[in-house]
Amino acid sequence: MATEVFKFGGSSVGSLERIQHVAELIKEKKREIDNLVVVVSAMQGKTDELLNMAKFFTEIPDERETDLLLSSGERISSSLLAIALDSIGCRAVSMTGRQVGMQTDDAHTRARIRSIKTDKIRKNLQEGKVAVVAGFQGIDENGDVTTLGRGGSDTSAVALAAALRADRCIIYTDVAGVYTADPRIVKKASIIKNISYDEMMELASLGAKVLQIRSVEMAERYNVIIVVKSTFEPTLPGTIITKEGKMENRAVSGVTGDKNQAKITILEVPDKLGIAAAIFKRLSEKKIIVDMIVQNVSDKGMTDISFTVPADEIIAAKQVIEPVCNELNVKAIKTDKDVAKVSVVGVGMRNHYGVASDMFEVLSQEGINIAVITTSEIKISCLIEERYFELALRALHNKFMGG
Amino acid sequence: MATEVFKFGGSSVGSLERIQHVAELIKEKKREIDNLVVVVSAMQGKTDELLNMAKFFTEIPDERETDLLLSSGERISSSLLAIALDSIGCRAVSMTGRQVGMQTDDAHTRARIRSIKTDKIRKNLQEGKVAVVAGFQGIDENGDVTTLGRGGSDTSAVALAAALRADRCIIYTDVAGVYTADPRIVKKASIIKNISYDEMMELASLGAKVLQIRSVEMAERYNVIIVVKSTFEPTLPGTIITKEGKMENRAVSGVTGDKNQAKITILEVPDKLGIAAAIFKRLSEKKIIVDMIVQNVSDKGMTDISFTVPADEIIAAKQVIEPVCNELNVKAIKTDKDVAKVSVVGVGMRNHYGVASDMFEVLSQEGINIAVITTSEIKISCLIEERYFELALRALHNKFMGG
Repeated sequence: MATEVFKFGGSSVGSLERIQHVAELIKEKKREIDNLVVVVSAMQGKTDELLNMAKFFTEIPDERETDLLLSSGERISSSLLAIALDSIGCRAVSMTGRQVGMQTDDAHTRARIRSIKTDKIRKNLQEGKVAVVAGFQGIDENGDVTTLGRGGSDTSAVALAAALRADRCIIYTDVAGVYTADPRIVKKASIIKNISYDEMMELASLGAKVLQIRSVEMAERYNVIIVVKSTFEPTLPGTIITKEGKMENRAVSGVTGDKNQAKITILEVPDKLGIAAAIFKRLSEKKIIVDMIVQNVSDKGMTDISFTVPADEIIAAKQVIEPVCNELNVKAIKTDKDVAKVSVVGVGMRNHYGVASDMFEVLSQEGINIAVITTSEIKISCLIEERYFELALRALHNKFMGG
Repeated sequence: MATEVFKFGGSSVGSLERIQHVAELIKEKKREIDNLVVVVSAMQGKTDELLNMAKFFTEIPDERETDLLLSSGERISSSLLAIALDSIGCRAVSMTGRQVGMQTDDAHTRARIRSIKTDKIRKNLQEGKVAVVAGFQGIDENGDVTTLGRGGSDTSAVALAAALRADRCIIYTDVAGVYTADPRIVKKASIIKNISYDEMMELASLGAKVLQIRSVEMAERYNVIIVVKSTFEPTLPGTIITKEGKMENRAVSGVTGDKNQAKITILEVPDKLGIAAAIFKRLSEKKIIVDMIVQNVSDKGMTDISFTVPADEIIAAKQVIEPVCNELNVKAIKTDKDVAKVSVVGVGMRNHYGVASDMFEVLSQEGINIAVITTSEIKISCLIEERYFELALRALHNKFMGG
């Protein structure tokens, strides 16, 4: 018995015509798949439309109410898709987060899935129906509606695939798969055929934005095979995300980056135990996400600490650290908004020497200075001047992806 | 402890500005009302918008799916109103049909309320919160979302008022109350101060359209006091609907009518037992609503039967009865679409002589011929030529309502 979970994103169900197209695609696929679950996002723009309505009243709308409000978007798209399927003779039944047994904690607007009670969905599947599930939503212990955060429908889909032990979870989207680089910047970017969960997480968090990062974490934990495919060109193979990817004998799987970075450097910090902790604890308390961190130990008993934050949080971040920096009597706090991060990602890197040195050489040949370097087992990132961002991506892609 | 249920219709919450206005009205009223429940309809036009989306796929969308789709409208308006209330410092909590314990049968798109579990709403009220309830919706035994039919939010409100033994149920709408006649036709029409459930039912079913008729039936059964008021001029007294109304020493409470009528006359039907039943059973099976019925017994063993149906069902109605009429060998079936019904309604009629003769005289003075007459204890209706409709309403209003 084949069991598959499909997920269609907002642009795939962005109009009634597109919902009709998706219904026809599902009807055709249903012939070969005994148990078919389809998770849908809200129609493109709907979630923002609803959120903007709430913000008419207050900048920070009540989170419980916001969740009820936003969950309507997926209820609309899922019932419309079920109607579309029924109307072309493909028996379907829509299911809300509650009906599909998606139990979450009560962290409204960013809830985590606790468990899925699958009896109801299994019953629908056994009756031969396509289960059309409203993504992004669940309910907490009180029976209140919760949502899983932006892109949460991906996580809904992977969680259902895990709970139903589905053969695979196909994420249908508006691109043909995961690219080796942003194709708007790097013209020669191509679709990655196979990629590991870890690589995908590095690429996703760096801006590939094809999948909610949590869904990949969850897929890794439950070993769910994810396929990213185009809704509009479904015959293309897309990208398969699995545990090990498939060795393509290539060190680097993709080249990515993030322009939304700002750098803060604290000069001449006393090089004592607990100083870095004191600074970063303040930022964490204010929920400011810190990305790259470097600290150069000096021999004068002083050290410089640099780190990056999202560009629009630079002022807040500076305000947060100023009191503690004053206490420590540091020399200065410098900020720089005109920076960008470029990264190369690949599991192959673990077995290939010289990726780092190749990267630095490529950037140097283009006359690009490197401000900060961070590395992980499968990723090397460099902070550079923002104006060189596109140039750096193209040069790195040319070097590692072969043009 | 004062307990009240407010209901705001689609036009009252038809824009974000109006929701803000409603929130301020509620905040002010909450000072005097310990337990305040607010039932909301979908924002004006929303239900039609959703229904039209469903009809993109099929003329007859699956009813279970349609209910899930349509219920989103009230979820959106209720969560927005709760957000608006919270943002002006009036603590509120939105509640869906399920959360408010609105148990219904499984007759999708026209469900009937079976019971209301009030423990959750009572808890919210005890905490001092305004409970903002999504109207129009409930859930059936399977946990599927149901809806109560057009105007169902009125019924939601009255049912909640009954279950909570509320002091009254205030229906806030876009008119200042129930008029003695359609003010677009009869310029001198005024607001009825007090009216009985029975009168209101006659007026509602005849086209006053202020309230869903079922809500008045339910109010009568549970003795819920209804007040119809303007959202935009809330200081006006509005119309109070109670068991007996209040005797205003007036025979007639209102004058109303319906232009959407068509007449069918079957000539020379054999005057035998069961003939009328045979004809009307066919119509009922096809769910064609028959309004006025008259049968004149003749002395030739033959009789003529006339009845009215909604104008747009005249062709269907004729097709339905043709086979049985052919069997009965009737002389002819005549149809007439250019007819309208005018009615005078009033409990006072029971104690006043001469309302019927006054009505006939008024119409006669205006040169209006009466085709069909039906009467009930509190209503007299005449079928007339459609072109005299407005003239008849004005003349009758002038006679009975004193100008």
